[in-house]
Amino acid sequence: MPRYAITIEYDGTPFVGWQMQANGPSVQGSLVEAIAKFTGETVRIQGAGRTDAGVRALGQVAHFDLEKDWLPDKIRDATNYHLRPDPIAVTHCRSVDEDFDARFSATARHYLYRILHRRAPPILDRERVWQVPVPLDVEQMQRAASHLVGHYDFTTFRAAHCQAKSPMRTLDRLDVEVSIDEIEIRASARAFLHNQVRSMVGCLKAVGEGRWTVNGFVEARDACDRKRCAAVAPASGLYLVQVEYTLAGE
Amino acid sequence: MPRYAITIEYDGTPFVGWQMQANGPSVQGSLVEAIAKFTGETVRIQGAGRTDAGVRALGQVAHFDLEKDWLPDKIRDATNYHLRPDPIAVTHCRSVDEDFDARFSATARHYLYRILHRRAPPILDRERVWQVPVPLDVEQMQRAASHLVGHYDFTTFRAAHCQAKSPMRTLDRLDVEVSIDEIEIRASARAFLHNQVRSMVGCLKAVGEGRWTVNGFVEARDACDRKRCAAVAPASGLYLVQVEYTLAGE
Repeated sequence: MPRYAITIEYDGTPFVGWQMQANGPSVQGSLVEAIAKFTGETVRIQGAGRTDAGVRALGQVAHFDLEKDWLPDKIRDATNYHLRPDPIAVTHCRSVDEDFDARFSATARHYLYRILHRRAPPILDRERVWQVPVPLDVEQMQRAASHLVGHYDFTTFRAAHCQAKSPMRTLDRLDVEVSIDEIEIRASARAFLHNQVRSMVGCLKAVGEGRWTVNGFVEARDACDRKRCAAVAPASGLYLVQVEYTLAGE
Repeated sequence: MPRYAITIEYDGTPFVGWQMQANGPSVQGSLVEAIAKFTGETVRIQGAGRTDAGVRALGQVAHFDLEKDWLPDKIRDATNYHLRPDPIAVTHCRSVDEDFDARFSATARHYLYRILHRRAPPILDRERVWQVPVPLDVEQMQRAASHLVGHYDFTTFRAAHCQAKSPMRTLDRLDVEVSIDEIEIRASARAFLHNQVRSMVGCLKAVGEGRWTVNGFVEARDACDRKRCAAVAPASGLYLVQVEYTLAGE
């Protein structure tokens, strides 16, 4: 059966999240329905990352199989036609080998977390950023962030209901950048735990406010105790930016 | 009377435009109402640029006078409180000299026009970009754009109902930049004519599509004839990014 990989942009606000669930509409479910409308086939879609409700994706990746051969561009356009008016679009579609797996073949996942750091409420980015109207010490946040880059037990930074077998992860990047009134936190790893980015951002904000010291931040990491996590940052500031793969021949 | 200058971010979609008009809500009108709610004064607000319905602003500037002295930060916060839930926010407020005029003291206005250049519909930027799903030759667009930078009669590029006395303007910048699937057109001048940016973008798109040659573009400019303008680009892609002033002491 021919296998296809799609890159997907979506606004997770009206969904229960990426994953199909009994309690409401999901991004995955909308895609399955849209693909069924022109292929007549009910596919199983495997996504690279299970984003939560309210999280946005610029470059989620997923794969599925179809009985029949389709031109990838035709799949992209027909899926987009049938997705309307849902805030989901397939930006790219390509044929892939049958051993390609959107989840397990991924070599890197890149997330962005946006903090709007000003007194005035967000307007053009309403519900797309976390507004923090109090002073933040960005240098201290940067110092703290550097202590999470590497191979660690991230128990403090994962949801209590996270289903991953191991809390060990290797974080390749956790950059805190400032541009005018926005603080952008960029996190990269081969794989993340559930709520890991939002948990790390919540703790970095505690450092920025001066409520936590950098040493306290490191202690929270080393405690490997979920109760030591600060308030988790809201979903609305989080973006799944890109998923990387090493495709055959590249 | 103390004079204040405010910088304003807004989404022009639900408004008839910046300017107060009889036919619906305006950004200016919402600001006047919000300021009246905590000062008791009905101010006259002068804006730097009269943006049309649907145009967004990141940095519109306006000035007004109040009988009473207020702390600028207090004006910012109280105005924002009373603006809710309108998609308008005052990002900055400062005291200015009584000869400061948001419209006439401006030394530069900077606009951005965003074209989403891909087959898939916009999702995160729905109604915030002009989606052009057909091939565009960006190099030809850049060549054409260079022919508008300088001092010209912009009659071809201004609305038939434009009220400016002279069609002569000096365009300081008209850059066409590409980043992944977006084409960003940045236009800077001390002053613009009504619909000038959207008219220029509409003609640049005609060049990009190959419907117009660069020579035809220059001929349309030199014709000084509104009928020679291509279809005007939609308001939804346009952003008033910044207005510059030379303030005393700078």
